[in-house]
Amino acid sequence: LSIQSYLKTRKKKIDHALEAYLPKEAKRSSVLCQAMRYGVLGEAKRIRPILALAACEAVGGKDTQTLPAACAIELIHSYSLIHDDLPCMDDDDLRRGKPSCHKKFGEAAAVLAADALLTLAFQILARSGQKKPSSSKEKTLEVISLIAESAGVFGMVGGQAMDMEFAGKTPDLPALESIHIHKTGALIAASVKAGAILGGGTAAQTKSLYEYGKNIGFLFQMVDDLLDGEGYVRVLGAPNTKEEARRLSDKSKKALRGFGKKAVVLEQLADFILERKA
Amino acid sequence: LSIQSYLKTRKKKIDHALEAYLPKEAKRSSVLCQAMRYGVLGEAKRIRPILALAACEAVGGKDTQTLPAACAIELIHSYSLIHDDLPCMDDDDLRRGKPSCHKKFGEAAAVLAADALLTLAFQILARSGQKKPSSSKEKTLEVISLIAESAGVFGMVGGQAMDMEFAGKTPDLPALESIHIHKTGALIAASVKAGAILGGGTAAQTKSLYEYGKNIGFLFQMVDDLLDGEGYVRVLGAPNTKEEARRLSDKSKKALRGFGKKAVVLEQLADFILERKA
Repeated sequence: LSIQSYLKTRKKKIDHALEAYLPKEAKRSSVLCQAMRYGVLGEAKRIRPILALAACEAVGGKDTQTLPAACAIELIHSYSLIHDDLPCMDDDDLRRGKPSCHKKFGEAAAVLAADALLTLAFQILARSGQKKPSSSKEKTLEVISLIAESAGVFGMVGGQAMDMEFAGKTPDLPALESIHIHKTGALIAASVKAGAILGGGTAAQTKSLYEYGKNIGFLFQMVDDLLDGEGYVRVLGAPNTKEEARRLSDKSKKALRGFGKKAVVLEQLADFILERKA
Repeated sequence: LSIQSYLKTRKKKIDHALEAYLPKEAKRSSVLCQAMRYGVLGEAKRIRPILALAACEAVGGKDTQTLPAACAIELIHSYSLIHDDLPCMDDDDLRRGKPSCHKKFGEAAAVLAADALLTLAFQILARSGQKKPSSSKEKTLEVISLIAESAGVFGMVGGQAMDMEFAGKTPDLPALESIHIHKTGALIAASVKAGAILGGGTAAQTKSLYEYGKNIGFLFQMVDDLLDGEGYVRVLGAPNTKEEARRLSDKSKKALRGFGKKAVVLEQLADFILERKA
């Protein structure tokens, strides 16, 4: 199975699940439902949920154990893009080649749709753990805690706040790293770790996969910067950034030692993220 | 113990716990931390967490079982006020007599602080259930699910979206009721139910207290409207609204039959909410 066709079937599975989790048009808050669906469905790489599913597989787990959490993480990622695009934040009129959520539905609906997506993520997570065996409940609570921490003030939201504080200025390397570790890296690393936990990985396996996830998160952002000439490219220059990205890809693959063939997909994902062109 | 001194000691306990849950100033995202603390601490009635604690007591539970969830609910209430005050929403410059969060810290910090508060709420909830006996884990997951549902697209956020759609127009009575059941009522009712579940209430007790909570939520909003001459007062007039509020207070107290002396505080809270002047 090539990585391209793997990604395609995974994306299809995740899109299908997301579609089912999102509310249909309600009687009164129809604009809200539309804005929520618009902010999530359609073009998107689904890298985070795919990493969660692949990590689950690497420890011998089944998709059904991780799919709800994978979708919850994608809802959190989607909400963050809606808020980041707002005029008071990055003020982006376009997202994935289409009008951003607030351009399409107005600012109030965009703010609220994102709030509702973040809330829905935790509802999906909690429900996925109810009526399951006791050990699954503990894992679900651990994953809720992990995802909340990675998405909150000391994770993604904290990173976005640091980024806003540097608006117009060029941060130095330590500041830039801190922004990216929090803003992008934390939730990507949490995706991998969540898959490992829910798939039934041992503590040692979960630790190794979390290490993989942290490097992948860093790598993902670095390649983003290579593609748009921002961030690391401005501070380090393109050649050094490429070199650093290759180093991170190798480092992430080293963390997979001990998984053998089970981690082939995660290895290929590291290559794919390093070499991606969009 | 008078209800006034009960409220005072409860508020103190809750404020103390909230203070401890909120992040201290971090190295880099200090504006974010400040905005989070500003949006939560200070003047506030703490009605929702007090109701949660009182419901827990009514079923014979201990404060410690419900305090984390009570605080989480107050964080969710606080985040919603920050977003509601934004220029694209109700555009309020003042909140509780002080500059609203975005007036004090700017719009971007206010959006992010609220996002971080919502996320922190679920982190607190999940952590409170970890490393507890199996039965507590199930209850915690039930409460996370309940709170997320009450706060999301089919609860609080949905109600705010409906409210925004009626901006400038006067909704008819069914529309007004639907707005308030969702925007205010759902989270208040969930506060009471969460206290009942976490305090170890039976299914029948939890059902009765949820019934109490739904009436109290409705009552709370009606008295708000009586105090500021909006909403119900515009549609029904002040005398009818007063009459309706008294009816709801009675109805909420009827749901407490069977609790005997254990529910004295909840009864007094119904009277207090009916007669409050601010």
